Amino acid sequence: MSGLLGTNVITQIGILVHDIEKVSQAYADFFGVAKPQVIVTDVWEKAQTEVNGSPSEARAKLAFFDMGSLQLELIEPDEHPSTWRSYLNEHGEGPHHIAFVIEGMKEKITLLESKGFPLQQKGEYTGGRYAYMDTFKELKVLVELLENDKA
Amino acid sequence: MSGLLGTNVITQIGILVHDIEKVSQAYADFFGVAKPQVIVTDVWEKAQTEVNGSPSEARAKLAFFDMGSLQLELIEPDEHPSTWRSYLNEHGEGPHHIAFVIEGMKEKITLLESKGFPLQQKGEYTGGRYAYMDTFKELKVLVELLENDKA
Repeated sequence: MSGLLGTNVITQIGILVHDIEKVSQAYADFFGVAKPQVIVTDVWEKAQTEVNGSPSEARAKLAFFDMGSLQLELIEPDEHPSTWRSYLNEHGEGPHHIAFVIEGMKEKITLLESKGFPLQQKGEYTGGRYAYMDTFKELKVLVELLENDKA
Repeated sequence: MSGLLGTNVITQIGILVHDIEKVSQAYADFFGVAKPQVIVTDVWEKAQTEVNGSPSEARAKLAFFDMGSLQLELIEPDEHPSTWRSYLNEHGEGPHHIAFVIEGMKEKITLLESKGFPLQQKGEYTGGRYAYMDTFKELKVLVELLENDKA
């Protein structure tokens, strides 16, 4: 695997929605599964969210569904600046990103930026960190990098 | 599994593009894989494509990438009426559907239509058949059903 990520395994599809309670209920009904608990991303002090290089108080409500070997993630962003909010405003509801589990977040971000794929947003979550890279122009979807802490 | 499809395993993500040669080269470069052969869907006599209940001569160029347990499908539609063309015109380039392998295509289409998810497009391909169901309003992405012939 000589690609930029060191993997080509999609682990997540992220879909932007206006009303996560309504849409997650629709998924639960459609696929015959329990409606998952909606999670709210951490406050800035924990998430340390940066959007286009600047700190942002942006938070989002998330709901996850296991769909085979990958997760489908519903995302309802708040009104603060984020890749979620700007993409939702520009494209409307629908798929936003595909995610890949990588190792070495800083090095991957640097590598991707050197190849012309700017960092759009990054942040921390319990157990790891994420980065949205702007691959839309080339790949027609955003790529999210996920790095999980070693146990 | 008491859901409408009898499965929740996503087997494919379909992404609409204007220039499949350019975008498939970008994927090949990004993921470090060979650029796949672009396939053109069958002529009407074989594909028997129906869009919103009417025959359509629509065809599309397709390119497939293996991304873990699922395929990422790039789709460049022609100008004839299709779910691909109307979605591309309305939403621009980007993800269009998630696909599931089902059994009993006719019964599944009837079941989904009875639940308020209309059939948008269906057709035949060598070895099976597909149907795009209009789940966008509820699920914020289209669902494609794939049925493969028994060996």
